[in-house]
Parts: sequence; structure tokens; C-alpha cells
Amino acid sequence: MTKFDEATQAIRVDDTTYDVCLDDGYSIGGPLNGGYLVATVLRAVVDASPHAHPVSTSAQFLRAPRPGPARVIVERLKSGRTVTTARASLVQDGQPFIEALVTTATLDAAAVPDWSGGPPVTMPGRDACVRLPMPKPESNMTLSAQMEMLFDPPTIGWLSGEPTGRPEARAYFRMAEPQDPDPYVLALAVDALPPVVFSAGARGWAPTVELTWHLRALPAPGWLTLLGSGRLISDGWFDEDVEVWDSAGRLVAQSRQIARVGRG
Amino acid sequence: MTKFDEATQAIRVDDTTYDVCLDDGYSIGGPLNGGYLVATVLRAVVDASPHAHPVSTSAQFLRAPRPGPARVIVERLKSGRTVTTARASLVQDGQPFIEALVTTATLDAAAVPDWSGGPPVTMPGRDACVRLPMPKPESNMTLSAQMEMLFDPPTIGWLSGEPTGRPEARAYFRMAEPQDPDPYVLALAVDALPPVVFSAGARGWAPTVELTWHLRALPAPGWLTLLGSGRLISDGWFDEDVEVWDSAGRLVAQSRQIARVGRG
Repeated sequence: MTKFDEATQAIRVDDTTYDVCLDDGYSIGGPLNGGYLVATVLRAVVDASPHAHPVSTSAQFLRAPRPGPARVIVERLKSGRTVTTARASLVQDGQPFIEALVTTATLDAAAVPDWSGGPPVTMPGRDACVRLPMPKPESNMTLSAQMEMLFDPPTIGWLSGEPTGRPEARAYFRMAEPQDPDPYVLALAVDALPPVVFSAGARGWAPTVELTWHLRALPAPGWLTLLGSGRLISDGWFDEDVEVWDSAGRLVAQSRQIARVGRG
Repeated sequence: MTKFDEATQAIRVDDTTYDVCLDDGYSIGGPLNGGYLVATVLRAVVDASPHAHPVSTSAQFLRAPRPGPARVIVERLKSGRTVTTARASLVQDGQPFIEALVTTATLDAAAVPDWSGGPPVTMPGRDACVRLPMPKPESNMTLSAQMEMLFDPPTIGWLSGEPTGRPEARAYFRMAEPQDPDPYVLALAVDALPPVVFSAGARGWAPTVELTWHLRALPAPGWLTLLGSGRLISDGWFDEDVEVWDSAGRLVAQSRQIARVGRG
């Protein structure tokens, strides 16, 4: 079991209740990373389902939970031959922190696409990409140590005062501890990029309000490629779309989140 | 009150319960259109919220409800200054048919985008677009009579045996009865196109499993433009992305649904 597997572990208490322990190694400066929290919720939902994979997940982020013990409450809504639907809540001190709707199904690892679009942009090779500087310990950005990310340089130009002027972020991604990507790693990956709005010149805490992601195929071992973009920044809101491609060149996950533009 | 306003009306019974009457004028060959059902759910959710607009909606489609009386059960999860989050279920005979998570907020009608991408494709003018043939009465496609849609011709080439080979569908859209677009019309619009997978050569009933849509701005009066596309058809699943642009050239809604490819 990797550190990530352990940090997202959900221990069955009864048919609808799972104990989890939220790990302070996934902090993004205080709050825990939303993708990490969703991965933890999905461990419980998949355990409670007759199907193997979280194909579609929508999550509302109500509050930022503290590291430490929490529970996932899973309510099965309908179960059929092809899909099972469930509602799940991440609860701490009796209050919901994340509310999710999850459809599970069993994907075929050998499926060959009937049709696939290509990546929307071409990434430079990994040797032409760059790491972000290690965050200062006092920033409490502990998440950075869990992942290895190599960024397409212009998309982190905002770090040196040169944002591209468009909402975008692109990087190669893998876990720092050797681990083949799986659906839970993908749940982390779809929320692992810096907010795309940074590249359009915004700064500050950009809280996710809602994130939906779909697992489209089981990822091959190796690096993942994260392609993040946005369509509109308006009225304090922005969207962030992330496509995740695996080392075999397949689209394995699609996400869209709607978030608030940070102030100050 | 227009026919659509009436068909989506939700009458408050108490703090959490609304009576609705599902209208058989929104049938797509038996089942009722998913966007129509979501619009009806949103009437209840917005009535129960201190905020005016359904900014983010995720819906799981569990079963196909019959026309006739149903209820929407709204449970408020959290309410703050900027957003209110709620869970909502469309219930008939004590069973859930749609399960939704909705974030409401109040958008500024005068907001000017900080940044906006352009439309992903250029539409031909309305005079170069074409209507679908009126469905046969026995098809029970009553939805068609509620809407006026003018299609970008190649994207309905599948009708005459000439699919483009890509998942896509594009059309101008307005209600048949004169009505300015509003968030409820947009909920209908994001699910109004024929499944994009038809244009890639698939046929048959393509049931939506999950649909998430975000209201990005309040639409100007006039025609809407619906731009539908998909990224991957694989393992019996496809995604359908729809962008809705208003007559003032603004992106007003974004949706993505994940659905099953029809068989036979």
C-alpha cells in the first residue's frame, strides 16, 4: 500500500458508513486539496458498489475539512447491471463538507476507442518542461511533496510576472512515491494544477465550488499529461477544464470545475 | 406565463417540498427530455434559495419519470453570502428519478467578462441552416414542437446516411412560443440537440447518465447558438459538451453529459 493509498483509505463501519482519516500531507496552504478529498470519498463509494470504477463524479465543496478523522456516508440510489448510482457525503463533527453524486460501472481495461479526438494542444517533451520551486515550509503547501509535476513553461510564466493572459495550465504528472496511476490518482490529478486563472493574471485563493470528472479509461502505467484550460472569467467565476492523457496516448479523464476568482 | 413556464412550474408545499406536473409535451419518444426535467427541478431549488440563479447543476438520471404529478424535494446543504448549495430529488411514487446538486448565486446582469475565449467553431448564418423534418406523430417526439432549431447542415448529415464521422451537433435555438431565454430555457437548451454520437455513426436511444451544466451569464433576448461536441466514444460511453452562446455573442452556459451509446 502506497502512502497515497493509505491517505485515502476508507474503512467500512457498516453498509453506509466509512471511517477515513484526512491526511495533512495534502494541504494547499491550509485547506486540503479537493482532488485528494474526492479520491477519499470515492474509496468508500466504490467499496460500497458492486461495480469497480467511479465513472462519473460530481462534488460540491461546502466547507474545508480539517486533517484528522472524518466519515463518508454512502447512500445507494439505484443499482443496475451496467451502473450503480450513489450519493456520498464527507462528514466531520456531524457536518457535511463535501456532497457528491457518483456513478460507478466496470470499465473494460482492453476497450479500444470507437472514436477519439486528439489532445487539444501539443506538449513539449518532459526535458523541456520545468518544476515549480519547492514551496516554503511556512506556506503549508504539503501537497507539492506528494506529486512530481513538470510544467509547460509558458503556463507558469505568471510565477515570474509573465502570465500568458489566458486561463491555462499544463503539466506532466506522477506521484512522488512510485505508484501506477489508477482512478483515485486521477481524482487527485484533475485538481492538481495551479488554478488556470493564475495564467490569466489573477492571484489568491480560488475556491472550487463544484467539480465534475469522468473516468473515461483505465490509465496505463507511467506519466500522465494534464491539459488545463478555461473558457470564461466573469462576474467572479471561472471554469477550469482538465483533460488527463495517459502514457499510451489515451484520454483517461475529463474534468470541469467552477470556482471563484480569488481576491487580493 | 408561457407554456414552458407553466410546464416547469413548481408549487411550494412546504420548506422542502414542491409539487410539479410533468408535461407530456416534452417527450423524446416516450421518456421526457432530461433538460426539461432539470429545468423543473431548478424552479423548485431557486424558489427555495435566497439567491436568484442556478449557477451550477449536476444531475444523475436514475429512471425515466412518467408525465403527470411528481414532487421535488429540496434539502439546503449550506447557505452563505455568495452561494447556496442544495440537494434536490425529483420523486414520483416515492422513488427518486433525478438526483441533483445545485449551487445558486446571484449573477450580475451587467457583468463584463474579464476574459472570454471565442466560439470553438464558426456557425453559418441562420439562412444557411436547416430544420429537422417534423417527427411522425407516432414517434411521440412532442418536444420538437416546443422549440425552433436551425441546424448547421453537415451536423445532421447522419439523417440522410452521411454522418460527419465525428461527434458533433450545432444549431440555432429558440422556443417556439415567443419567450426570452432565461436560465430555465438554458437548462432545456443544453440537452436539446440530437446526441452528438449520431454524427459519429451511432444510432438508437442514448440515455444520459449524468449531466452537469453551469450558467455563466444571463442570456440576452433572441436566438441562442448551441455548439455540441464530444471527445471520446469508448467502451459504450460517450461525452457530450454543449456551449450555449447568446445573441449578444456571450458564452451563457456550458454543459457536459456522460451517456451510454445506444444499441441496435
